[in-house]
Order: sequence, then C-alpha cells, then structure tokens
Amino acid sequence: MLPKTLEWKDDRLHILDQTELPYRVEFIQCRNYQDVAEAIRKMKVRGAPAIGVAAAFGLYLGIANSQEKSYDEFLMEFTRAERELSQTRPTARNLFWALERMRNVVEKTRSRSIKMLKELLLKEAKAILKEDQDLCQKIGENGAALIEDGDKILTHCNAGSLATAGIGTALGVIYTAKGEGKKVRVYADETRPALQGARLTVWELTQGGVDVTLICDSVAGLLMRKKMIDLVLVGADRIAANGDFANKIGTYNLAVLAKAHGIPFYVAAPYSTIDHSLKSGEDIQIEEREKDEVTHLSGQRIAPNGVKVYNPVFDVTPHQYVDRIITDQGLFKPSAKGKNFLDRGE
Amino acid sequence: MLPKTLEWKDDRLHILDQTELPYRVEFIQCRNYQDVAEAIRKMKVRGAPAIGVAAAFGLYLGIANSQEKSYDEFLMEFTRAERELSQTRPTARNLFWALERMRNVVEKTRSRSIKMLKELLLKEAKAILKEDQDLCQKIGENGAALIEDGDKILTHCNAGSLATAGIGTALGVIYTAKGEGKKVRVYADETRPALQGARLTVWELTQGGVDVTLICDSVAGLLMRKKMIDLVLVGADRIAANGDFANKIGTYNLAVLAKAHGIPFYVAAPYSTIDHSLKSGEDIQIEEREKDEVTHLSGQRIAPNGVKVYNPVFDVTPHQYVDRIITDQGLFKPSAKGKNFLDRGE
Repeated sequence: MLPKTLEWKDDRLHILDQTELPYRVEFIQCRNYQDVAEAIRKMKVRGAPAIGVAAAFGLYLGIANSQEKSYDEFLMEFTRAERELSQTRPTARNLFWALERMRNVVEKTRSRSIKMLKELLLKEAKAILKEDQDLCQKIGENGAALIEDGDKILTHCNAGSLATAGIGTALGVIYTAKGEGKKVRVYADETRPALQGARLTVWELTQGGVDVTLICDSVAGLLMRKKMIDLVLVGADRIAANGDFANKIGTYNLAVLAKAHGIPFYVAAPYSTIDHSLKSGEDIQIEEREKDEVTHLSGQRIAPNGVKVYNPVFDVTPHQYVDRIITDQGLFKPSAKGKNFLDRGE
Repeated sequence: MLPKTLEWKDDRLHILDQTELPYRVEFIQCRNYQDVAEAIRKMKVRGAPAIGVAAAFGLYLGIANSQEKSYDEFLMEFTRAERELSQTRPTARNLFWALERMRNVVEKTRSRSIKMLKELLLKEAKAILKEDQDLCQKIGENGAALIEDGDKILTHCNAGSLATAGIGTALGVIYTAKGEGKKVRVYADETRPALQGARLTVWELTQGGVDVTLICDSVAGLLMRKKMIDLVLVGADRIAANGDFANKIGTYNLAVLAKAHGIPFYVAAPYSTIDHSLKSGEDIQIEEREKDEVTHLSGQRIAPNGVKVYNPVFDVTPHQYVDRIITDQGLFKPSAKGKNFLDRGE
C-alpha cells in the first residue's frame, strides 16, 4: 500500500518526512508557511508536483491566521509567504505554477472579504491537491499504453507517489501497467548524491508490490548493452516548449545511453510541468546544492576534507533524446524540428 | 608527495591500507600469504597493477618459511598459496600474470636447491615491483604527449599511484604532464559503490598537487555537454587482443558519453594488462560483489532492508570507443576492423 505523501487534516499540512525514509515512516505537521518552506528546502517533501501542492497549502497557511482587515495589508502578508516559498527550490516548475494559481485567486477576487478570500485560497490549494491525484491517474493510464507485459524498465530518482499527492508520474505509469495485469521489472538507479532511488523509489515500489532491483548510477550502460533494459522512464521537473526538460542529475546520461543502445526513452509529467515561456532547455536555471551532499553521507565524511566539489542537482536533456512525453493530456512526441513539441505524436 | 602503496621491508610486505583512506594513512604488514590474500580480497590493496605486485610478494611469503626439503613438497606449498591468491579477485589480468611469472621461476629452475628457489622467487617479486614503477614512468611519458596545457580531464575510479607500485597509470600520465609544466584540471568521478574516486583519487591528486574537483558519477554527461571536459582518461583491469577492455563499473557509460560528445577517450595501462588469449571483451569474466557495498556505507544502511541489488564491479568497453591505449610500450589505436589493436596508431 502506498503511503500518503501529503494530506490536509485538522487545519495542518501533514507531510511524510522523506529524509527519514526508508528507516522511519514519520509525518510532520506544518502549522505555518515557515514550516512548509523549511520542509521543501530540506527536501522533507520533494518531487516537483508534491512541492507544488505543499507550496499551495504553505501559502494558505501564510494567511490563514491573518488578522488584517484591509485587502492591501492582507496582500502584504500573502506576498511575504509567497516570496519565502518561491525561494525554497529554483528549478521545479510546479512550485511557481502553484504559487501563481494561488495569487490569481487573490487578484481576481479583491472585492471579496478577507474571510471569503481565505476560504477561496484553501479551496484552491485543495483543488491543486485533488487535481494532482487525478493527473497522476491520467498520466498512469496514458503511459501504461507504452508498457508491454514483461518489460524491464530503468528509472532514475523518484518520480513516484512520494513525489506527488497521487500515485506518481513515472512510477504511476508502472503501477497502472501492473494494475492492468502486465508483469514488469524495474531497475532503480540509486541516484547520487541524495539517493532518492535507493531510499525512496526502492521503498515505494516495494510497498506497491513491484519487482525492483537497486543499481548504482554507473551500471546503466552495462545493463543496456546486455539487453536487460527495454525502456527508460523518468519524471521531469521542468519542460521547455520544445520538449527539452530538466530532471535529476544523471537523467541526461541515461538519455544518451538509451539512444546509443536504441532503447525508448520516456518522460512522464503533469502537463503543468511545461513552461511555455521557455523556448528551450538552455534557459532552464539549474540549482547547485551544497558540497556536503557529496562529501558526507548520514553525517559521515566519505571524501577528504576541503575537496572541491561540483554538485548540480539537475541536468537538461534535449528533446532529440525523448521518444514520448507522457502527460495527463496525452502522449506527445517532441518534433524533430524542435520548434514546439506539442504536436501530438503518431 | 605521493605515499608508498607497496613496499618490501624487513621481510614483510607493507601495504597502505586503502580502506582507511582518506581518514587515516595506515600501513599493514603482511607476514604470510594469507595476510596478502586477505588484503587483496578486502581491497586494502586494489588496482590491477598493485594487486599483481602484492600477489607476487604474497606467493613468496607462501614459501619463505617452508621447511620442505623436496622440490615436489615445496611445489605443493607454492601451489597452495598460489591457489588462494588466484581466488582473491577474478578480473584483474595482472594478478594472474604475476602469479604466472612466479610459477615460471619455480618450473624453470626445478634443479636448484630450495634455498636458491626462495631467493629467485623473492628476486622475481622485487623485479615485478621495480618493473611496475618503471612501467608507470613510461606510461606517464607516453601518455603525456596526448595532454595539452589547460586540458580538463575526467577520470573514473583510481588508476593512480594507489593502484600501482609507482606513480600510477592514468594518473601517472597526469603527474607527468604536470611535471612537464602543463596546467591540467581533473574532474574525478566518485565511483560508486566503493567510492575509490572520492576516497582515493581525490586524496592522491591533492597529495600530488593536482587541481581536482569531485563529482558524482551522474554528472559526466552535463559536464561534457557544457564543454567542461577535453578528454577522458581511465585505467584498465584487463584488455582483450582486439582492444576491448574491462575497467571499473561506469567506465562504459563514460565511453558512450565521450563518443556522443566527440571527446577523446584514452585508456592507460601496462602492456601486461593485455590478455592475448582473449579475442574480445565478450570473454572477460565480470566480478559481482556483495549487495552490502551498495546498500551500506561505512556500516550505515542507505536502502531498505531486503532489497534486491545488482552489483557488478566492472564493465567492458568495446574497442570502438577507445581512441588510444597508452602503454609502457607506446600508444596503440584499436583497429577499426577489431582484429588486433596492436597495430600502432598514427
């Protein structure tokens, strides 16, 4: 049984603390926007769709107890929470998308009472969560059409139920295929440095009853060469208008390897992950994180003191490497011309 | 200053314990062949050339205190040590090559006294060590011709002084280029699961005064795409007659990535790493190690209990991906026909 990654209950956002997995299944209760910002920043909640949902509730929590009477002062409180939440992680498209939806509510309804505004904002956050669950279902159904009985699937990082409020994107496709009676086998990259594959994907696939084998990130080429992989299936944090996309560091390696071995490469993500304002992946901002993520593990040092480290969190895979983008709106095939991938494929 | 990885002193083999690096610089003293076999098996000494040198001294230690008077009984003791040492690691060509050299001494000189045989075997082990140091120098000189001032070099695992009795193979090339006044910059893959890059390569390059930056194995593609890598330089554990070669898992990933980005890919190894009995890499036996290497780090669990793991230690890179094989006997270019790479290139 898959656990609830995010749940709104008793006026609090309950978040499954993913930094404790797979050792402990613990939920933290966020009572204010700072709690939510902290949870996103520390990757207690991660995965682009889940971050979006969390940020929406975070923004609501930022004004839930507001005593302001005037719209302008209310808006200042709203903006303060919005600013802090928007600065937690720079790459995930869904974070900004969710914050924009919440702002639209405030701007469209400035004539209403503060009380009414609060209610509308909570309603919007709940809608974002519910939509995310529905999107995952649709992504799963659309993507499962690409999976055949017996497929051996390679995945990277965690694009699963732990990354969304629903059954996940890439892993949602796998759960759906399994639900349709297809037997699949998954190889999960451990995904250094934060080990989302080893800690999260392996754990949640096991919870979901899927046959999974853990590998180091460096094993992919060998597996492909030995014909032990039928397809690669990953998530996306941000997709440009031409189909280039940003995802966890190492995704681009897999894309190049898959192409060299003639293996299909699929990306699963909500349609909202597409940033139509970005012409190509060149413009996607790539987050760099602290060197400690690479030099330390569970507080233990694994490299010499003082070593220089380059620790980018994401890479950008050009659309030429992508066979299908699986969304809730259907399957898309990036155009060879690279203009706009939104022409539906085949 | 580079430390002494292997040293024969006071009738003992002194081995720098690489499982303690980079935390502690500690030497273990091997007094018998079991000590040496244990050190190889537990990767206290690792790297194909260093394993060969250690095994040669291990074999000598196996008969150094023999009380046998007859050649046949002496040979039984020799064979017992030889068998145990040969079963420590299956892939490194140099291990078997060194053991064969020691056996040749015994078989060629069966007419001599046991005392004389012991002396000849010690002499042979010392010769293997000295030759390894000389080979490293020559590999360094031959390879440095391929390095230009300002080059940014990507390396994987540890093919350095810690992997040999000398200055190393791939890293020996870098030290030599630096000695020639060329400024180079190295990116070192951390090299999961055993982290030889993070623990060893970064440490020894720093000792050797080389500018080094640590990256996760998954970062290579991004670096190449950003034109931050001018060449890839790795070692080899075993090279087939056609130029296919086995090296640390992840090497093949780098080779495919390098080709896709038009980046030269060089392999540095002693000529003795070539196994002329192997027509191609298809026949190279690949060692699989325990799943604990992937699921645990410094005794700490980093994946769920009971997870399935696939943990191959090496992969095989076909000769088509190799631009030059740098040996002590010169530079070789694998033939496009794949028959025999020993035609010298250009």
